[in-house]
Amino acid sequence: MQNVIGFVSDFGLDDTWVGVCHAVIYHACPHVKIVDLGHQIPPFDIRKGAAVAAAGVYQLPDAIHLVVVDPGVGGGRNDLCITTRAGTRLVGPDNGVLLPAAEKAGGIAEVVALNPRKIDHRPPLATFHARDVLAPAAAALACGVEPLALGTPIDPATLKPAPFQRCRIEAGVLTAEVVDIDRFGSIRVSVTPDDLGAHDLGREHLQLSFGHLTVDAPFGSTFSDVEKGQPIALIDSSGWLTLALRRGSAAERFGIEPGTIVRIT
Amino acid sequence: MQNVIGFVSDFGLDDTWVGVCHAVIYHACPHVKIVDLGHQIPPFDIRKGAAVAAAGVYQLPDAIHLVVVDPGVGGGRNDLCITTRAGTRLVGPDNGVLLPAAEKAGGIAEVVALNPRKIDHRPPLATFHARDVLAPAAAALACGVEPLALGTPIDPATLKPAPFQRCRIEAGVLTAEVVDIDRFGSIRVSVTPDDLGAHDLGREHLQLSFGHLTVDAPFGSTFSDVEKGQPIALIDSSGWLTLALRRGSAAERFGIEPGTIVRIT
Amino acid sequence: MQNVIGFVSDFGLDDTWVGVCHAVIYHACPHVKIVDLGHQIPPFDIRKGAAVAAAGVYQLPDAIHLVVVDPGVGGGRNDLCITTRAGTRLVGPDNGVLLPAAEKAGGIAEVVALNPRKIDHRPPLATFHARDVLAPAAAALACGVEPLALGTPIDPATLKPAPFQRCRIEAGVLTAEVVDIDRFGSIRVSVTPDDLGAHDLGREHLQLSFGHLTVDAPFGSTFSDVEKGQPIALIDSSGWLTLALRRGSAAERFGIEPGTIVRIT
Repeated sequence: MQNVIGFVSDFGLDDTWVGVCHAVIYHACPHVKIVDLGHQIPPFDIRKGAAVAAAGVYQLPDAIHLVVVDPGVGGGRNDLCITTRAGTRLVGPDNGVLLPAAEKAGGIAEVVALNPRKIDHRPPLATFHARDVLAPAAAALACGVEPLALGTPIDPATLKPAPFQRCRIEAGVLTAEVVDIDRFGSIRVSVTPDDLGAHDLGREHLQLSFGHLTVDAPFGSTFSDVEKGQPIALIDSSGWLTLALRRGSAAERFGIEPGTIVRIT
Repeated sequence: MQNVIGFVSDFGLDDTWVGVCHAVIYHACPHVKIVDLGHQIPPFDIRKGAAVAAAGVYQLPDAIHLVVVDPGVGGGRNDLCITTRAGTRLVGPDNGVLLPAAEKAGGIAEVVALNPRKIDHRPPLATFHARDVLAPAAAALACGVEPLALGTPIDPATLKPAPFQRCRIEAGVLTAEVVDIDRFGSIRVSVTPDDLGAHDLGREHLQLSFGHLTVDAPFGSTFSDVEKGQPIALIDSSGWLTLALRRGSAAERFGIEPGTIVRIT
Repeated sequence: MQNVIGFVSDFGLDDTWVGVCHAVIYHACPHVKIVDLGHQIPPFDIRKGAAVAAAGVYQLPDAIHLVVVDPGVGGGRNDLCITTRAGTRLVGPDNGVLLPAAEKAGGIAEVVALNPRKIDHRPPLATFHARDVLAPAAAALACGVEPLALGTPIDPATLKPAPFQRCRIEAGVLTAEVVDIDRFGSIRVSVTPDDLGAHDLGREHLQLSFGHLTVDAPFGSTFSDVEKGQPIALIDSSGWLTLALRRGSAAERFGIEPGTIVRIT
């Protein structure tokens, strides 16, 4: 039984939605601890939501994660509960937003399509599944209810795809995607420590090419391994390969945005 | 005894005020759950504060709501505890900010002007009633203290007026006001489902006129009832009539701001 | 044993860092209450972090304060636990960010350099001491562990200096520094009520000179002591001398930024 619910959404902090979901969860499961992992995802930005959720799951695998970035709310898409091989539980819409997080936690072990009638709350409002289906489902899981009691198992192969891709070998080169830019301007790339190990990269130095721009960076463990303003590659707290500057913004310096393709040698 | 305190303010999240009020409440009433419903109200914007508080009360009637948008702090205006007919408790200054919320919860049943001397906390700092009077009062209510133990009953007719008006019939037309624009650009109007029913509107289609601009929209239950980019009218999670675009910002498209008058047919 | 942890950081609310620290603390010490005092400190802005932390400590001296603005993370600087004469506990990096807060709470009684090996958590990631050292240390303190069990005492005289200075007498004039501008545009100055008393200032009227600009303001207790748009000097909830306008932004009107020197007569 997990008693932490991580919560990611594009609700922002200007309206009542986040608080109302908190209240629904506390009401159903008073002993749970809710940790807000990020609610400033730009409206409808599934990519950013997936990146933040994955970083949260990497750091808190032993938790339930409620992820609500849901442009298709009310439109017939499924609400899901994914259980990962590491035992993490992910609750959110079937639009790809949960998949990078699932992968960070060992991959999908089981998927259940939630059935609102099996969830003990008011009938769902078509514009607010988070309050009426997703948050109550997360609360039920936190109180020890099994996912199968909340819906019907479905085939993971039928899920909508993730909003960004894992790294792959293309023409002999490790090719990945910028998944996220963090607050400090560090560039996170869809490459894990295992990926680096499998391709014998990351010993001392990496070359990252974004189109015509190539950045040489030592591979280190912290920003202070280089001088102020110099680039460094490292695995940051998100679990992804990250290109950073010491006390500066790598994204600004190099003009990089999420979605950019990067080749790594 | 209610154990959720919803908290709305214009304190923002850059300073310590919200956290300090949390600490005051936890200290006085450790078992209470505080849910932050919105602290990014623009400084002194009573209208927006009232709109967010009303949406919060609509969704969480069975709670205590602490609402602090208080340009007149220290200037002799009363601190209030309003009990509504639905049993909701509202704590905040007497400047109209509580009244739309009170109406959402069945109207006013009782008003008490808080007496700082009856509230067990440090003497009130003239610039921070939230910490010294309002938050401790909300905490006391959460611990089961009755409002009359915290102050003196006053006549609801003497309260400062609400910052926006309920809908009314003008020259045979239902006339209302834009109360709020949400994060997704949806336009919330001071019309409730009951208002629509009373005027036999909202069967299938609505016409909303903002000055010279008229928008025709089907009346539906969710954004997905229309094609991408198309307008739809619905009752959203705030409990108000709302004009939205599917996956777009209605406020941007139509150039509408809070306070605009709208006629509905 | 203190059961409130105040938390200040430059992590922002767009990423998972704040939530992850919450989870670490709840895991180690489930009964603790965390109050977020401000996470929107601009990245690496030690001055603003110190100002917000000091305001938080002034209001919540009976708490543990976790303060993370840490441009030197991973670079060999110490992680600290400072105990003040008032019994406040401050946890954060040795870069000056804790010192104004320590002074607000009676000055430093004891400093301990934290030893990660004595803190019961995963080995510290070089980029995320907050999660791996500072938050677990704060949680341990909240559970009753003594600072000396978490590290080694060091000499307060060896600490890095504060990012702004206390007021001092220069050529017979009380000279101070603008430490912070709050959300409402009020200008906070590094002068305490004791400083005013010691120099026999603040009886009725103050003159504040910022370079060539001089502002005359009555010394009052609340904004409503003056007419709308008029300046007033008061001690605000941060415990610092503050120059404000009634219902306006003093910082905008007078063009003042943090770090400006101010002479007071």
